[in-house]
Amino acid sequence: MTQLSLTSKNRCFNGEQHYYTHDSETTKSEMRFSIYLPDEALARQTCPAILFLSGLTTSPDNATQKAHYQKKCSELGMIFIVPDTSPKGDDIPDDERYFVGQGASYYVDATQSPWSENFNMHTYIIEEFYDLIRLKFPISSIGIAGHSMGGHGSIMFGFQYPSKFISVSAIAPICVSSQSEWGIAAYTKYFGEDSKDSLPWSKFDAVSAIKQAGKQYPLILVDQGGVDEFYNTGYLQPEALHAACQEVNQPVTLRYHANYDHSYYFIQTVIEDHIEHHYNATLTHG
Amino acid sequence: MTQLSLTSKNRCFNGEQHYYTHDSETTKSEMRFSIYLPDEALARQTCPAILFLSGLTTSPDNATQKAHYQKKCSELGMIFIVPDTSPKGDDIPDDERYFVGQGASYYVDATQSPWSENFNMHTYIIEEFYDLIRLKFPISSIGIAGHSMGGHGSIMFGFQYPSKFISVSAIAPICVSSQSEWGIAAYTKYFGEDSKDSLPWSKFDAVSAIKQAGKQYPLILVDQGGVDEFYNTGYLQPEALHAACQEVNQPVTLRYHANYDHSYYFIQTVIEDHIEHHYNATLTHG
Repeated sequence: MTQLSLTSKNRCFNGEQHYYTHDSETTKSEMRFSIYLPDEALARQTCPAILFLSGLTTSPDNATQKAHYQKKCSELGMIFIVPDTSPKGDDIPDDERYFVGQGASYYVDATQSPWSENFNMHTYIIEEFYDLIRLKFPISSIGIAGHSMGGHGSIMFGFQYPSKFISVSAIAPICVSSQSEWGIAAYTKYFGEDSKDSLPWSKFDAVSAIKQAGKQYPLILVDQGGVDEFYNTGYLQPEALHAACQEVNQPVTLRYHANYDHSYYFIQTVIEDHIEHHYNATLTHG
Repeated sequence: MTQLSLTSKNRCFNGEQHYYTHDSETTKSEMRFSIYLPDEALARQTCPAILFLSGLTTSPDNATQKAHYQKKCSELGMIFIVPDTSPKGDDIPDDERYFVGQGASYYVDATQSPWSENFNMHTYIIEEFYDLIRLKFPISSIGIAGHSMGGHGSIMFGFQYPSKFISVSAIAPICVSSQSEWGIAAYTKYFGEDSKDSLPWSKFDAVSAIKQAGKQYPLILVDQGGVDEFYNTGYLQPEALHAACQEVNQPVTLRYHANYDHSYYFIQTVIEDHIEHHYNATLTHG
């Protein structure tokens, strides 16, 4: 059974911020994650959890330090979990571009060498890590959220594995990863050339996951900053997300926020709305 | 006149987080600071401000990213300003110990070579920087707060210059810097040996500032974590602070918080109480 190693523990509001490492069979490397546990969870009462997937270049530290989720999770008695964005280390393949390699998994399983040995973040998140957190912590249900590349991940996972999540949200997500310059660069490395016959890249797009989903959610929440430099240059495509939701009648609240950018200053501004979105889903589902 | 250079600007809640640099005559170096401006201030309406002094090893980034003050300052229409903890750079003297040199000014003016050339943070904060922010931003009044070495600074400045501040608070302050191992190491470098005849180190202690103050505040707020590793090893001495306040009848709310440590996870837990403390002082003072 996978062993967790506690690397730090800090009391924060009415709960504790923990960091752990564990050896992953899926990524063949040591993986880090952070988890905020409200006092209810520390007392081994089951609590709803949010799994938050982070964006390009980040580690669990970015959201844990800058997203400012702890206060609201303390108030509502929610667990907040931040896994890493890829396997990392000197022995792990990398690329000089920040949007390929370490910190840039896009939460897919690579099929091409040398990436396929470690870059299996799709299976890592949805099987190994998902099972691990449910086994080790008193989690009653999991909502999935994310930012940028992590918003791509949260929507993709949420609609591909609807039995595993009760709610979905995203902040400034990459909505059509296979058509963004970031995703094109990375998927070329991880999958080889795009092919409709073998493994179409679009299989790993948030919008295709919505269109092909077998289940709908009562409502998903997506926030987008109006002066986000990556929105304005076409990397994010929230309009395609909106069209996909309309096509399959998936209710979505897609909010545009004038003057906000792609940074954690925007994330902290809207994070409490996302936490409440996931919390409200637990009330509906009982 | 000193010119400010805006280096970044991010919308955050109902306001903007800015960073600036400027050339300082006092420290003979470029200095950085961050300032959160609520929409009222952006519209050039005067707002109350909090000047937050940070602890050892930090820059303006630590509090700006990790103290989580933006939401409450947005709600109350308050400005929040974080200067640097010392002059910094390849041309500035330093010491291999984290508690001496760059990042460790203790907000004093050094008298010994080579420190005295740049390490004039006392005069920098209380004259040059104080005047600069009042000139450049629509500030109605200033409360002073800080963490650890910055808590030493906030209490020292607050009681040495009561006409400049309307309220004082501190989180895990170094209360008797000249008797802490950190301060002894630094003051030996900055002032030379302690001497009652020339410049007694105790002149730069928070507790001596309280005892010698010509003015009292209606109430000061101090928070201390119960498992703070520096409290438990005698570096902070909040008991001496409490005794000094009793001696001169300075009202103080000194709260001990079981299980909280010295980190920004503790700071974010109590920061909103500090913001409200300073906000309430502006109501009292009109």
